[in-house]
Amino acid sequence: MTADELEAALREIGRVRYHANHPFHALLHAGKLDKGQVQAWALNRYCYQAAIPRKDAALIARCEDPALRRAWRRRLVDHDGSDAEDGGLARWLTLAEGLQLDPEAVRRQNLALPATRFACEAYVRFVAERSLLEAVASSLTELFAPEIISERVAGMLRNYDFISEATLAYFNARLTQAPRDSSDALAYVRCHARAPAEQQAVLDALTFKCDVLWAMLDALYHAYVIPGHIPPGAFDPAGPDGLAP
Amino acid sequence: MTADELEAALREIGRVRYHANHPFHALLHAGKLDKGQVQAWALNRYCYQAAIPRKDAALIARCEDPALRRAWRRRLVDHDGSDAEDGGLARWLTLAEGLQLDPEAVRRQNLALPATRFACEAYVRFVAERSLLEAVASSLTELFAPEIISERVAGMLRNYDFISEATLAYFNARLTQAPRDSSDALAYVRCHARAPAEQQAVLDALTFKCDVLWAMLDALYHAYVIPGHIPPGAFDPAGPDGLAP
Repeated sequence: MTADELEAALREIGRVRYHANHPFHALLHAGKLDKGQVQAWALNRYCYQAAIPRKDAALIARCEDPALRRAWRRRLVDHDGSDAEDGGLARWLTLAEGLQLDPEAVRRQNLALPATRFACEAYVRFVAERSLLEAVASSLTELFAPEIISERVAGMLRNYDFISEATLAYFNARLTQAPRDSSDALAYVRCHARAPAEQQAVLDALTFKCDVLWAMLDALYHAYVIPGHIPPGAFDPAGPDGLAP
Repeated sequence: MTADELEAALREIGRVRYHANHPFHALLHAGKLDKGQVQAWALNRYCYQAAIPRKDAALIARCEDPALRRAWRRRLVDHDGSDAEDGGLARWLTLAEGLQLDPEAVRRQNLALPATRFACEAYVRFVAERSLLEAVASSLTELFAPEIISERVAGMLRNYDFISEATLAYFNARLTQAPRDSSDALAYVRCHARAPAEQQAVLDALTFKCDVLWAMLDALYHAYVIPGHIPPGAFDPAGPDGLAP
């Protein structure tokens, strides 16, 4: 494949497998969820947010090229910020607080679905253990993020009276960060994936990452959209102590 | 806690959280699934079977005590056998073949649900990375296995005309192996978990392992019991090529 053909194949994977296609997102954006279900989404998604700077550090940790390390370091800054009130993780906790979740409980992650945590850890391990090329390629879901974020912000503001612009501040920052990051990562992949086996590995890495995001939404849908399926010990918005038995 | 109190607390976790309580098992044993759904169960559960000898080797790899290493080595023998036709993995492939699955496709694991693979890998990582005591304790779900196995074998033979005793040979071996293994592991935990923090770690390890098994059945239930939720690329018994789009 030429670099353009490889890029087209990557975009095709996103078109079919990116979690924008998942029914949970349709419900979320269309205002079809109640507040407890949106809380469950925010609480679980925090596990993903918390895994991101660890996977980014794992990538930097195995990279010999100072230029790529410097470029990737911006992601650490974006997520961890320059102090405790700054950065993507802090903004996600603001979102959780805006939904009347206890930010300390969210930060502990122990009320999240086990399936969410397994998926997030699988992503961290993938980046730590596969080739650098595959690690970079697994970030390429960001190519497809701006569209879903715009949809989400507009849909959630329109459809939920418990959501405000301040609550969704996390996503505003991502609208500029994600395109910058994904265009760097795409340029790296276009340049370094030349042999057929490398190109296949890159496609598989993006598929894997789409599977991670999809599995997280499957778990949310199963536990919080279909009645009666919250696993023991997980967050239960209707539970007497916020916990499933 | 005394050793007896610790054992009682472990058994209570199993009573509440072991996957014998999961609705998928009720459907499986009662004959409420069709052949495609039982195929999906066998195909996904193979990932767990395939992870077990790796997690057992990870435990042996970090154990300084030759007696415990020897005791644990029996598990490798049980699962990997003494040649390609022998052992638990081979028996699981016999089960899959008895269900008219292609054993080579099952062995590749690429049609399994991503959530299944993430849960199985989380278990292998847990055993490789936590303390030896937690690694041993995470095996204690086997305390509860004989009951579910007896139920399963009787229920499946009674309720499915596509299931024979030969197909279920895997479980016969487990009926003697599991009690032997779990009584060794329980003795180890009773003896070595003395400090409150150690005892809590042991309880948490068993809870974690129950979460792994539960998450696997949640994923199966969501994909194969509720219509329309098979993730892209996973096994689809009704798909034209056996694959979800």
